[in-house]
Amino acid sequence: MPVSVSKLANGLTVATDPMPGLQTAALGVWVQAGARCEAPHHLGVSHFLEHMAFKGTTTRSAREVVECIENVGGYLNAYTSREQTAYYARVLKDDLPLAVDVLSDILQNATFEEQEIARERSVITQEIGQCIDSPEEYIFDVLQESAFPDQPMGRPILGTVETVGNMTRAHLTDYIADRYGPSTMYLMGAGAVDHAALCEWGEVSFSKLTEPRQTAAPQAAKWQGQPFLETRPLEQAHLCVGLPGASVHDADFFTAQIFSEILGGSMSSRLFQEVREKRGLCYSIYTYNTSYEDCGLFSIYAGTGGESLVEIVPVIVGEIEKMTNEIGHEELARACAQGKAGILMGLENPQSRCEWMAKHLPRFGRVQSADELVAQIEAVTIDDLKGFATRLMETERPVLTAIGPIETLESYSQFAARFGSAR
Amino acid sequence: MPVSVSKLANGLTVATDPMPGLQTAALGVWVQAGARCEAPHHLGVSHFLEHMAFKGTTTRSAREVVECIENVGGYLNAYTSREQTAYYARVLKDDLPLAVDVLSDILQNATFEEQEIARERSVITQEIGQCIDSPEEYIFDVLQESAFPDQPMGRPILGTVETVGNMTRAHLTDYIADRYGPSTMYLMGAGAVDHAALCEWGEVSFSKLTEPRQTAAPQAAKWQGQPFLETRPLEQAHLCVGLPGASVHDADFFTAQIFSEILGGSMSSRLFQEVREKRGLCYSIYTYNTSYEDCGLFSIYAGTGGESLVEIVPVIVGEIEKMTNEIGHEELARACAQGKAGILMGLENPQSRCEWMAKHLPRFGRVQSADELVAQIEAVTIDDLKGFATRLMETERPVLTAIGPIETLESYSQFAARFGSAR
Repeated sequence: MPVSVSKLANGLTVATDPMPGLQTAALGVWVQAGARCEAPHHLGVSHFLEHMAFKGTTTRSAREVVECIENVGGYLNAYTSREQTAYYARVLKDDLPLAVDVLSDILQNATFEEQEIARERSVITQEIGQCIDSPEEYIFDVLQESAFPDQPMGRPILGTVETVGNMTRAHLTDYIADRYGPSTMYLMGAGAVDHAALCEWGEVSFSKLTEPRQTAAPQAAKWQGQPFLETRPLEQAHLCVGLPGASVHDADFFTAQIFSEILGGSMSSRLFQEVREKRGLCYSIYTYNTSYEDCGLFSIYAGTGGESLVEIVPVIVGEIEKMTNEIGHEELARACAQGKAGILMGLENPQSRCEWMAKHLPRFGRVQSADELVAQIEAVTIDDLKGFATRLMETERPVLTAIGPIETLESYSQFAARFGSAR
Repeated sequence: MPVSVSKLANGLTVATDPMPGLQTAALGVWVQAGARCEAPHHLGVSHFLEHMAFKGTTTRSAREVVECIENVGGYLNAYTSREQTAYYARVLKDDLPLAVDVLSDILQNATFEEQEIARERSVITQEIGQCIDSPEEYIFDVLQESAFPDQPMGRPILGTVETVGNMTRAHLTDYIADRYGPSTMYLMGAGAVDHAALCEWGEVSFSKLTEPRQTAAPQAAKWQGQPFLETRPLEQAHLCVGLPGASVHDADFFTAQIFSEILGGSMSSRLFQEVREKRGLCYSIYTYNTSYEDCGLFSIYAGTGGESLVEIVPVIVGEIEKMTNEIGHEELARACAQGKAGILMGLENPQSRCEWMAKHLPRFGRVQSADELVAQIEAVTIDDLKGFATRLMETERPVLTAIGPIETLESYSQFAARFGSAR
């Protein structure tokens, strides 16, 4: 991959991944600040700030911010995760200087007017309501909280109705001063983009950044799994099992990905075959593997009729346990092929290429090439996978979350006894 | 666009859209058969068939079907809409012959074993439950039904728990004999694909197709809008307004798209600005424009706290009404730019290119070029848009659907009086 990386005089890191033949470009600023950087009194400030960036600057009204990009057919968006906040655009090639200008404007010159803050409290409160109403989304929020209770890593990205209701202008400006600056921000472009040009625009546009006051890493995460069970009048019971996964620096990082692929990553995976194809117990069942700086969360989701909960939980745990002593070469080869093809397909999408750089650069100081990634995937062995299965089965405090008609679900102590030393 | 189209000796249409530089290809078979082709006694058969295609053929077990594609890192999937059913794969370049072979196998040699049918009844029943539990998804199902009640166009794609429970092998094989054949099927590829090669593989692999018994168009849709109101213990009220839109052959087809863009297609749209940015009433509000062979459904979705329903409904209708007499040149220019950029961005994705061909070929007998589409978008005038707004406001039986805490929602007769001759 022809990725170029430069550090500008203003301290900002710029990275580009040009794709010949494209007429459009994906562009964005990724900030190393997310929900796990927050203190309890301003929960949700990372995400609130992401909203407020679109609410006007010293030279553009809120409407002008979005109109100037949408006038040329582009779009502007943003998201907040637990470790990053991203502000990004997709535009035609010729509109890249405009996109850099707008991104630099919303990140340096946002005005945070009181009236806009008041309105956004209401919008985000609505967003929280929408999340709670979507059981397949909400269950992952409570999963995170149940894995890491009473600590920054477990708190909801959106904040709570209470903390959002109490959000002030000072919370926002303090948070920016604490966490946003050239050493925590990465300007990335992929597609129809030229490295020298992006560096030049970045140098001019991001001249007002100052170093963040807080450079300490956020509080380390500590796994303290517990249950979350909520009876709701739904058609389906929505269920997650959560176990400690691999951090991004863990020797098992690639093992965890291949393991997830084999257990529940595709239609030929063990859980899909056993739970849906053989038993017909559900429509959706899949694994989800999230890696953070210092920890990981490995989870299995299933949506099923309440009467099937008795059957499905032992099957899920049983499939993990089986992988402690029996994994086929064919399964491993298939998961590797899926991992490799996924990399190639991602390379054909400019937004994916930006995400890739945004994951690698802050963590490793460079962007791993497709060949390097493939080599690491191919290095995963059956013994590694069995070892990872054993590691999952040794969990002392597994997480069990369930929402819906869950009256027949086994107790948490029964569930926990399937893992750890109680086994 | 360098799209090539051929009709093979076996009657099948093949179309390809090669993209230089890509290592992967999107490939699929689009069948001109969907939920609106169904009779009441076998509702959901199109979608049931889509599921059963993956459940084994005369030479491959269900597991072998998915494994042979996933072994090489590809994936296989399918979807059912009201007018089409699609079976598609994404694979690396060298695996295209395999993908054609598998698609032809599942479409010609599926065995439909009784045991598999029984299991799939259960899986699809779970899928129906999952849909009902997702208010933002379910509300679009009831919107369709409320616009076209008691007729094929209004029925749910998944069928009902009852019709799925009664689905038999004969329903499936009859439906294939009725609707699947060379004249209703299109083999399409985009990305790293060669037209001559795809034609050759298609000729060899699809030799068993026979002409469908039913060639009549499905029953014409008749707009008969009515309300659907369901109180549910949710955080948010999920609301849709539905109005008769433009069919794919309607002179207003492109007008409807531009209109939708201006009213609720982006962050600079009227509804987003008025309802979210100015009033802070919701997190999600957007328009949705669906065009069928003989009709269209234009809808507006909003999710909001129950107490805001009193305010939001008049605002939504008011914004449509305003467009009957006041639309700015700048708004039109922006919507055109968005439409054009959307086309260019779609061109950079092989799956989008396949969808594009699948929309055009059966309808028009050819694939419109990007330039043609752009010209039609640019031809839309402010008068066209005002005319379309007037057309929407003249609706005699508008649809209103709402799910959640909807106690404060106005009555259907109050709502309907905002439209039509009652105005």
